[in-house]
Amino acid sequence: MTPGNLRLLIDCPDHRGLVAAVSNFIALHRGNILASDQFVSPSHGGRFFLRMVIEGQGFGLVDRGEFDAAFAPLARQHGMTWRVSLTDQPKRTALLVSRQGHCLVDLLWRYEEGELDAEIPIVVSNHDTLRPKVEAHGIRFIHLPIDPTDKAAQEAAILQLFDEHRIELAVLARYMQILSPGFLDACPCPVINIHHSFLPAFVGAHPYRQAHARGVKIIGATAHYVTAELDAGPIIHQDVAHVSHRDTVNDLVRIGREVERRVLAQAVRWHLEDRILIDGNRTVVFA
Amino acid sequence: MTPGNLRLLIDCPDHRGLVAAVSNFIALHRGNILASDQFVSPSHGGRFFLRMVIEGQGFGLVDRGEFDAAFAPLARQHGMTWRVSLTDQPKRTALLVSRQGHCLVDLLWRYEEGELDAEIPIVVSNHDTLRPKVEAHGIRFIHLPIDPTDKAAQEAAILQLFDEHRIELAVLARYMQILSPGFLDACPCPVINIHHSFLPAFVGAHPYRQAHARGVKIIGATAHYVTAELDAGPIIHQDVAHVSHRDTVNDLVRIGREVERRVLAQAVRWHLEDRILIDGNRTVVFA
Amino acid sequence: MTPGNLRLLIDCPDHRGLVAAVSNFIALHRGNILASDQFVSPSHGGRFFLRMVIEGQGFGLVDRGEFDAAFAPLARQHGMTWRVSLTDQPKRTALLVSRQGHCLVDLLWRYEEGELDAEIPIVVSNHDTLRPKVEAHGIRFIHLPIDPTDKAAQEAAILQLFDEHRIELAVLARYMQILSPGFLDACPCPVINIHHSFLPAFVGAHPYRQAHARGVKIIGATAHYVTAELDAGPIIHQDVAHVSHRDTVNDLVRIGREVERRVLAQAVRWHLEDRILIDGNRTVVFA
Amino acid sequence: MTPGNLRLLIDCPDHRGLVAAVSNFIALHRGNILASDQFVSPSHGGRFFLRMVIEGQGFGLVDRGEFDAAFAPLARQHGMTWRVSLTDQPKRTALLVSRQGHCLVDLLWRYEEGELDAEIPIVVSNHDTLRPKVEAHGIRFIHLPIDPTDKAAQEAAILQLFDEHRIELAVLARYMQILSPGFLDACPCPVINIHHSFLPAFVGAHPYRQAHARGVKIIGATAHYVTAELDAGPIIHQDVAHVSHRDTVNDLVRIGREVERRVLAQAVRWHLEDRILIDGNRTVVFA
Repeated sequence: MTPGNLRLLIDCPDHRGLVAAVSNFIALHRGNILASDQFVSPSHGGRFFLRMVIEGQGFGLVDRGEFDAAFAPLARQHGMTWRVSLTDQPKRTALLVSRQGHCLVDLLWRYEEGELDAEIPIVVSNHDTLRPKVEAHGIRFIHLPIDPTDKAAQEAAILQLFDEHRIELAVLARYMQILSPGFLDACPCPVINIHHSFLPAFVGAHPYRQAHARGVKIIGATAHYVTAELDAGPIIHQDVAHVSHRDTVNDLVRIGREVERRVLAQAVRWHLEDRILIDGNRTVVFA
Repeated sequence: MTPGNLRLLIDCPDHRGLVAAVSNFIALHRGNILASDQFVSPSHGGRFFLRMVIEGQGFGLVDRGEFDAAFAPLARQHGMTWRVSLTDQPKRTALLVSRQGHCLVDLLWRYEEGELDAEIPIVVSNHDTLRPKVEAHGIRFIHLPIDPTDKAAQEAAILQLFDEHRIELAVLARYMQILSPGFLDACPCPVINIHHSFLPAFVGAHPYRQAHARGVKIIGATAHYVTAELDAGPIIHQDVAHVSHRDTVNDLVRIGREVERRVLAQAVRWHLEDRILIDGNRTVVFA
Repeated sequence: MTPGNLRLLIDCPDHRGLVAAVSNFIALHRGNILASDQFVSPSHGGRFFLRMVIEGQGFGLVDRGEFDAAFAPLARQHGMTWRVSLTDQPKRTALLVSRQGHCLVDLLWRYEEGELDAEIPIVVSNHDTLRPKVEAHGIRFIHLPIDPTDKAAQEAAILQLFDEHRIELAVLARYMQILSPGFLDACPCPVINIHHSFLPAFVGAHPYRQAHARGVKIIGATAHYVTAELDAGPIIHQDVAHVSHRDTVNDLVRIGREVERRVLAQAVRWHLEDRILIDGNRTVVFA
Repeated sequence: MTPGNLRLLIDCPDHRGLVAAVSNFIALHRGNILASDQFVSPSHGGRFFLRMVIEGQGFGLVDRGEFDAAFAPLARQHGMTWRVSLTDQPKRTALLVSRQGHCLVDLLWRYEEGELDAEIPIVVSNHDTLRPKVEAHGIRFIHLPIDPTDKAAQEAAILQLFDEHRIELAVLARYMQILSPGFLDACPCPVINIHHSFLPAFVGAHPYRQAHARGVKIIGATAHYVTAELDAGPIIHQDVAHVSHRDTVNDLVRIGREVERRVLAQAVRWHLEDRILIDGNRTVVFA
């Protein structure tokens, strides 16, 4: 069987010879570099970000453990943070939803079409509404209602599911609940959220109502990693749609659905293909 | 000589028969309706907005005074606010600039190409920098420096210029000064500003620096009518451009210039063609 | 029960007094005009197009037959073609599909969300592939395979289904078959197609392959009414997406799916809301 | 004085170790890689394209002759075509115009703002119309009218100017003349043209008239390298604007001007920053 390709993400202080060091390491193990992107961020006195895709076929280090062991000395020498992933091991992804189905339906359709490099074992929801949509795709739907007097219990149940299913990415596909700092601390994987406004405009609840009241001529959506501060995590992707005085709040909601699903799908796709690195509160996206 | 066409803008409480009443009035005076747009806003229990273009040729009321006299009884009956303008009387427009020329150069170029239905007798600036650009177009450039201990004096001088030149529209083409409430009260005409962000995000100073710090993936520009509250007046037009982690603050400034000049030109163009009505803090734009 | 509103579409030679005549007619029958759009096309020496939405509540002619009878004399006098439809009588719409599901899934999802002012009784296909997607929405799926030696038989079967189900609009949601002139002549309703290119570029088969070979930097999709000449009918809507040298033909197909479904949905939505009039081989779209 | 940075463009058959070989060469000469982009095209059995920016400061080969001499053996070994340019040696660029000034004015304004990494010694035109616009920027304007009975004479004069001024890039900023194959053969530099349509739609004359007649809902512009076949050279950049039934041919011309100048400026900018490589009749753009 042909092995998958490897995606290598590196992040370290910038200095001369980094590309040579990494590409020599790869050449030494007879690897072929299929794609390479680099970026030097001015933050922290110069920080180097690299993404390489190495052809698995013919490469001497197609096992993740072997790669890590062989790469560690080089990484230590240059102060590198790195991670490597294999294109034949799609990330195990959990979707969290509430009652609105547009982002969910879109992600599941793309999943079925093979657009998403993921394995989706579970969809979790605080409502039972979207069960049929999920089960039609042969995916397990888990209803975890929230007890307002004990929200922590539901979050603990989610964490346990993530653990059981070895979840590597959680996607809030209009989940509508604020995750507690405790949950985020304990969560074993990154969490991507779609916020239905052009952040940082209209943080918080009812952004379309806020947008209509302000009389904006464009509405937007923002996909970002979730951090403890509400709607303030690193932004992955944003897009917008033009609106006019004729559009009511309901029209904004309808038009916004189109933008939200597109923006979320793009962000998730990029994450699944290891195209995103974190640079402080900003993202480096090798699109 | 063929008379110009008339643009009629009406704003009144909504009720039955308004279109019939207005179109009968026009038909009675042998007018031909070339274009008509209407909108009923849900605000204030239903408010009716209408824009009609009436062919001047053959119309019995091509003089503005005559039109107003004839139309007044009908307007009174329906509680209408109205204004009529003539397409052969382009609005007398003043541009206010500071040191950055991109919006100015763009507006002057469009003016020369005949894209703007305006007469621009003066450009006013608190710096002398852009004088050659303006004078190359044969337009009078007036340098009114600001004395920080007496800003009111400069504003008074601007108002006097507006009065002398019978200015009907003022455009802040990156003027970079906050006009005082006193100035706005006394100003005889609407003032359009271009703000270099996607309002309401990044109100105030240095929006591109703010945008870069937040790590947004889209930057924008907003053209709006100026009111006493900073960057809070009715929005006329907005547009955006995608940016990436590679873009520095300077890149955002450069990319933003492109968006700013386009958004401002469009807003000015719409205003000059009487396509904008005010609905509270929102605009109705019959584009 | 509150009656639905009426949408009136008119098309006639342009002359003075048309708006007055129509709005008087409506006022005479105590109608309230909720929205009105007009356009005078320079074609054929001036052609007048009008769309009005009249509030059903309180209007004296909410029955289509009654309206037509009352309106006919006025229409005759001005040489008007007109049609009136009721917002509480959504158009009966048939979808025709082949094996690709993206446009179908998107239309069905919007239908379920209430975004489409339609009643969809049947989906017809020359393949059985998409049956489960359709039946999951409780809609009848009819498989009509094509016998290459007798294509006319399948087309006749489609026409019979249209007749049985009183179909008022047919949508080719990537149907991939060219309908014969005979079918189009006999078809009782307009047919909307989505072509997967920016027409008139890349007419015919494999537009994404053609686009890739030409090295274009943008791909597009075009929704149009079907006429006997291939891909040459009146264009309703077009949109595009940027692509780069990195995108393979398969990437173009994937990116294109997003554009296709959006463009088709918009065109169908506009048709269902009676926002489209035909002006020769062009469309007037009162969006 | 700090030396400029180097931009290295490489194009060769793909195989293992190319990145390592190049980055070792740079490390050997104590160079720091500021940016690196690579692409493997499937054309011709795999072709490798690379753009690297090397910091001049500290690099051992900041002279172009020295670099070439040192790099040649490596290049020969891998069958590389390469070129290197210095960021402190902006490309000498000639603009060719006719009577329409929008692209010219925009390029000159960007040039003045420092947006274009160019040196523009001359503007050549077959009409004298735009002389004042050019001379206002202190640039030499050369009027070379075309004798319809001897077009070759004018082309020869242009070539002589290019030679005298050591022109490295020619930009047809709406030049409106078809350059002969003989001219293109003899021309010492690439030629970028802006075509006022979304190629390959509406090749040739009067694209806006063609677009209006077809009733398209989007118009576009295309910047491409000029080759002997009309409007068929490698496409660099394209963009579009939405239009409606209300837009006359003149409106399309006006809206198109905005798109044309933006698309041309972007293409020229990319070329000047050595971001474009040619892959058959396609371009690789490291934007």
